[in-house]
Amino acid sequence: VICDISMSLDGFIAGPNPTLEQPLGEAAKAPRVGHRAGELARASRRGRRRGRPQRRRMKESLAAQGAVVMGRRMFSGGAGPWEDDPNADGWWGDDPPFRVPVFILTHRAREPATKQRGTTFTFVTDGIEAALEQARAAAGDRDVLVAGGADAVQQYLRAGLFDELQIHLVPVLLGGGVRLLDNLGGAKVGLELDRVVDSPAVTHLRYRIVK
Amino acid sequence: VICDISMSLDGFIAGPNPTLEQPLGEAAKAPRVGHRAGELARASRRGRRRGRPQRRRMKESLAAQGAVVMGRRMFSGGAGPWEDDPNADGWWGDDPPFRVPVFILTHRAREPATKQRGTTFTFVTDGIEAALEQARAAAGDRDVLVAGGADAVQQYLRAGLFDELQIHLVPVLLGGGVRLLDNLGGAKVGLELDRVVDSPAVTHLRYRIVK
Repeated sequence: VICDISMSLDGFIAGPNPTLEQPLGEAAKAPRVGHRAGELARASRRGRRRGRPQRRRMKESLAAQGAVVMGRRMFSGGAGPWEDDPNADGWWGDDPPFRVPVFILTHRAREPATKQRGTTFTFVTDGIEAALEQARAAAGDRDVLVAGGADAVQQYLRAGLFDELQIHLVPVLLGGGVRLLDNLGGAKVGLELDRVVDSPAVTHLRYRIVK
Repeated sequence: VICDISMSLDGFIAGPNPTLEQPLGEAAKAPRVGHRAGELARASRRGRRRGRPQRRRMKESLAAQGAVVMGRRMFSGGAGPWEDDPNADGWWGDDPPFRVPVFILTHRAREPATKQRGTTFTFVTDGIEAALEQARAAAGDRDVLVAGGADAVQQYLRAGLFDELQIHLVPVLLGGGVRLLDNLGGAKVGLELDRVVDSPAVTHLRYRIVK
């Protein structure tokens, strides 16, 4: 069970629109590569050198992913008129990027939906453990990924249900927003640094949760 | 002008006692390396492999350092009986680890003090720019390091006076304390990831400030 999410250097969830195809969110576009030509050239050399581990990481991560859990807000794309429409599909369209079963934490019961290329949406109204149980069954040997938002991540952290925390640290200071690692309610979460993958714009940090 | 400070993954200044000799603070000891023997062995192999860049980094950083600026709290070691004693030397002793001129931001004028092996303490009562000016003059070609605490770092960030941000990211969740990258008051701070040095317990992140 893996938390996989982008965070700004000052601890906020990066950008309003993180998706699995663009897991770094809009903020990943925000870092400016510098105005001086030398810096730009250097950044691009660095990009070529570092592209390989990042692509490998993405490939590994997608192949290992067997099911996704997300909060209702991440499904519906935040507040908006669709919140009142119980049949709206949020903002994911007919071909969502997940391609595995997705379980949505919500208080409002709703029929499951089947989308293209393996994505299904199942709405779970009886809590985070029930959602995780269903996701585990769907994932089999593969990983269950909790993709956000902050509230879902915090609930699973407090309950001690994660095995791994993957933080994609985006070099921006948002100065405000929804904090990811907040409201832990005194929960003791032991972390052990497992892997750092360095890419030009984002630092991919993987921590094991010490139980 | 460099901000050089340790931060927990959830954004707090790591531990109550960061020093320049132990720049990672007490929290650097906190990550548990796992209870399983295999994990322990793996961590120690990783330590040997990764020790070299970390030592190089420390050496580079100390050689490049020409002066230090710090807040009054970091000088005095926080709240305590010594706060009322205008002649107390804080908690740094006769041989502080800086070995360069140190400028302390304070509201209380005080005579400068000369310590062993090149450390001097100068108390600056007329603001962060005045302190920086004195530190720059003392440092010559070398770096001026703002070593903390959070309040001093935030003042320099808001004023746009940093060239570089060096964050030593410690894999702990403190769940509370003093946040480092807070109170930015809407200041736009552009960051560009410059270098990541990966060590077993701490990730050393270096960002250039884009002006």
